[in-house]
Amino acid sequence: NFLFRIGDDWYFLFALGVIMALISFTMDFTVSKMLNAHRWLQQELGGNVLLRYLSWIVYPIALVAFSTGFAQSITPHSGGSGIPELKTILSGVILEEYLTIKNFGAKVVGLTCTLSAGSTMFLGKVGPFVHLSSMIAAYLGRMRTSVAGDYENKSKEHEMLVAAAAVGVSTVFGAPISGVLFSVEVMSSHFAIRNYWRGFFAATCGAFVFRLLAVFNSEQETITAVFKTSFKISFPFDLPEMFFFAILGVVCGLIGCAYLFCQRWLLGYVRRNSLTSKLLASDKPMYSALVALLISSITFPESLGQFLASRLTMKELLTSLFDNRTWWISLSQNSSLDRSPLVDPNNLWLEWANPQFTIFGTLAFFIIMKFWMFILATTLPMPAGYFMPVFVFGAAIGRLVGETVALLYPEGIAADGIVNPIIPGGYAWQGAPAYSGAVTHSVSTALLAFEATGQIAHILPVILCVLIANAFTQKLQPSFYDGTIIVKK
Amino acid sequence: NFLFRIGDDWYFLFALGVIMALISFTMDFTVSKMLNAHRWLQQELGGNVLLRYLSWIVYPIALVAFSTGFAQSITPHSGGSGIPELKTILSGVILEEYLTIKNFGAKVVGLTCTLSAGSTMFLGKVGPFVHLSSMIAAYLGRMRTSVAGDYENKSKEHEMLVAAAAVGVSTVFGAPISGVLFSVEVMSSHFAIRNYWRGFFAATCGAFVFRLLAVFNSEQETITAVFKTSFKISFPFDLPEMFFFAILGVVCGLIGCAYLFCQRWLLGYVRRNSLTSKLLASDKPMYSALVALLISSITFPESLGQFLASRLTMKELLTSLFDNRTWWISLSQNSSLDRSPLVDPNNLWLEWANPQFTIFGTLAFFIIMKFWMFILATTLPMPAGYFMPVFVFGAAIGRLVGETVALLYPEGIAADGIVNPIIPGGYAWQGAPAYSGAVTHSVSTALLAFEATGQIAHILPVILCVLIANAFTQKLQPSFYDGTIIVKK
Repeated sequence: NFLFRIGDDWYFLFALGVIMALISFTMDFTVSKMLNAHRWLQQELGGNVLLRYLSWIVYPIALVAFSTGFAQSITPHSGGSGIPELKTILSGVILEEYLTIKNFGAKVVGLTCTLSAGSTMFLGKVGPFVHLSSMIAAYLGRMRTSVAGDYENKSKEHEMLVAAAAVGVSTVFGAPISGVLFSVEVMSSHFAIRNYWRGFFAATCGAFVFRLLAVFNSEQETITAVFKTSFKISFPFDLPEMFFFAILGVVCGLIGCAYLFCQRWLLGYVRRNSLTSKLLASDKPMYSALVALLISSITFPESLGQFLASRLTMKELLTSLFDNRTWWISLSQNSSLDRSPLVDPNNLWLEWANPQFTIFGTLAFFIIMKFWMFILATTLPMPAGYFMPVFVFGAAIGRLVGETVALLYPEGIAADGIVNPIIPGGYAWQGAPAYSGAVTHSVSTALLAFEATGQIAHILPVILCVLIANAFTQKLQPSFYDGTIIVKK
Repeated sequence: NFLFRIGDDWYFLFALGVIMALISFTMDFTVSKMLNAHRWLQQELGGNVLLRYLSWIVYPIALVAFSTGFAQSITPHSGGSGIPELKTILSGVILEEYLTIKNFGAKVVGLTCTLSAGSTMFLGKVGPFVHLSSMIAAYLGRMRTSVAGDYENKSKEHEMLVAAAAVGVSTVFGAPISGVLFSVEVMSSHFAIRNYWRGFFAATCGAFVFRLLAVFNSEQETITAVFKTSFKISFPFDLPEMFFFAILGVVCGLIGCAYLFCQRWLLGYVRRNSLTSKLLASDKPMYSALVALLISSITFPESLGQFLASRLTMKELLTSLFDNRTWWISLSQNSSLDRSPLVDPNNLWLEWANPQFTIFGTLAFFIIMKFWMFILATTLPMPAGYFMPVFVFGAAIGRLVGETVALLYPEGIAADGIVNPIIPGGYAWQGAPAYSGAVTHSVSTALLAFEATGQIAHILPVILCVLIANAFTQKLQPSFYDGTIIVKK
């Protein structure tokens, strides 16, 4: 009992980190197998377009409907991201049901299905992981109370929930520091420094084990960032580009405001509208299936989907947007590039190339279509995260701005006679934290981008961009999570 | 008056950041001119050893004595780092005198002299910059009160001081995020998230202008990190190296404990001892001069100084320790390397090479000698920062461990048949935040290392190292700042 006492908290935090890392890795592994299976199926179906279409739409519809049905049948608390509810709990409201371990299975299975639907449904896993992590923390806390014979300690429980939120974020992106900061920014209004340490320790254990598993699984040679980039760090950008970075910040801020407004409006509308509200009350899986039918029909790669890079998974989308090349230049040099029947893992960005539409067309189309499709997807009552899609969406905005700047200055902006080409990937890499920061009212997304990509050379422009985008949304709109709380009240 | 109202805080924070950046840049500029003048003088003196010795010791003695005398004659509050006092203020104690603008001139002039004494005195500028920044914040606050006719607002003043501390750190290292976090960790126990935003904004403005000035001054081509590194990011380290990183953490933690203990003891001793206490009470400049005489005699490059790389400035010390080469291999390949009469700016690390002593000898000697010399220097009652020396010291520890590991595994540690050489610079880069984090009881030094070097590939080992080192010191010793508060009480 003595040993158990000494480091009490440390064992606990360590266990929390390791468990979450295992869950995160297992889920990623399963999801990637599921996505590969779907991709394989699409290939095997060969000539028949109708069959291919059916297999394309049935997969997400089935998964989404199952996810909704399964999760909702166990507990209605398992739907959505979980961050708004956790925020409510941390502000002092007691939602006992919400952290029971019963939710756990529902959320894990549901989320795996949701993610397996791939970039068609365009949903992520950060929010649910924060929820899962806090469930584990609450469970471990109860276990400790019964084993060690401690009396229940409300303030300690609270501290652990804060640490758990950090672990949730860090085991998704392998990003310990921003995991702590993002969860603090999003979920608390005040913060005790002694918690900082706890969150940091647990998040580091989580991120470490998560990346270690990737090495053991031979995905990586050593521990590196989740989304590796290869920007030039000796000369990251020309000074005059700061102007365009600022414009990118304004663009992200304005689109963020529009998004937050529409999202809140639609979330309210589906509750007011008699048809959808009836469906949502009595037959949730049916509602999910209908939405999935609509969305997956649009993303079918042989119809509109070819302009949406819809054959890529969420991770591939992000990796391709961070690509180091200047797309429109690469394309004009190899104008004979044909659309390959398969996705080329070394040239993911070719999915964005479309002979009829140009790079600018596909990016703009992606931004416009995903804008409303993602808002629609957020109304689905199943376990799903909304951070990753926002992050990818921001990267797409940045890539579009970056390609445009590269088009305006094909030779780069000369400073003192030295000419360096413009790297649109760098813009994508700034748009992602700027837009996601604007939507969630947080600035630590900048740090998240650094940690997730293993690149920090653009630090000042990224922060500038995030601050500008934040200035707009914080002035004009409640954050994504507050908006959800407002609507659900 | 309307415009002045709208963004009130933002103007204020912006001004704070810009003013501090200007001061920081001007001071760096002046100090580098002074150090160059000294280096030039040493060269010009040519053959006579005695003359060279005199010029070597007179320069720091005069500067340190003047710094002490000038600062103390204006106000006794201007001595030391300022962080312990600011911590006291932020915890609610009122030290009105401490933030008056009268301190400002004393601290700026005194600090410039202290820094101009170079690596001989081995002192830094972070602490005083936090103090300067809070003085400016307090002054701007009073100005606002009188211009806008606001009533005084204690809680607003407090918020501004927190932001000011962040600006102080960020304008020294060009590191906005860690500026905020480090100041929060070191100075507060609780923290309101709305302050986070303020600190972030002001720190970013400060860091941005600070780096921009370097571009305008043609030191840099574009905005980049303060201490640029060039480690390989595609394969940062072998997985088994994690073991050595952990050992480095333990070493840093233990040395940190020893340092904190000795430092507190000596600080108390010079107050108790009748001779030193009399000197410190009646003739502070004399005390400083005597200490400077002792230290500068030791660091004379033609006596013991040749084993201490004492011809390098503080910044050059850090840059040389982060060097990408494996020193003992480079040396054994060019055994004929002679000690050049001048410092070679492109091969700073050669200052560490000594034919009689080997790299390991000079590094170990540096660590042992600087250990007590730095502790002695902290007793001087003049404006001086103690973070940078601790950071450099940690880098030296890391470099020594790294070179040793590279000696044990000259071919690198093979993992799955792929062999990658060990990069001792990477160890130096981990030792710096681990040791400085241990001494200050903070984990955000890890982030500081990332931001200051523009490199984040080693993120997980760095954090691991910092956490391990922290575990030792937090368990066994009060932090550097708390120690000072305890002694001064």
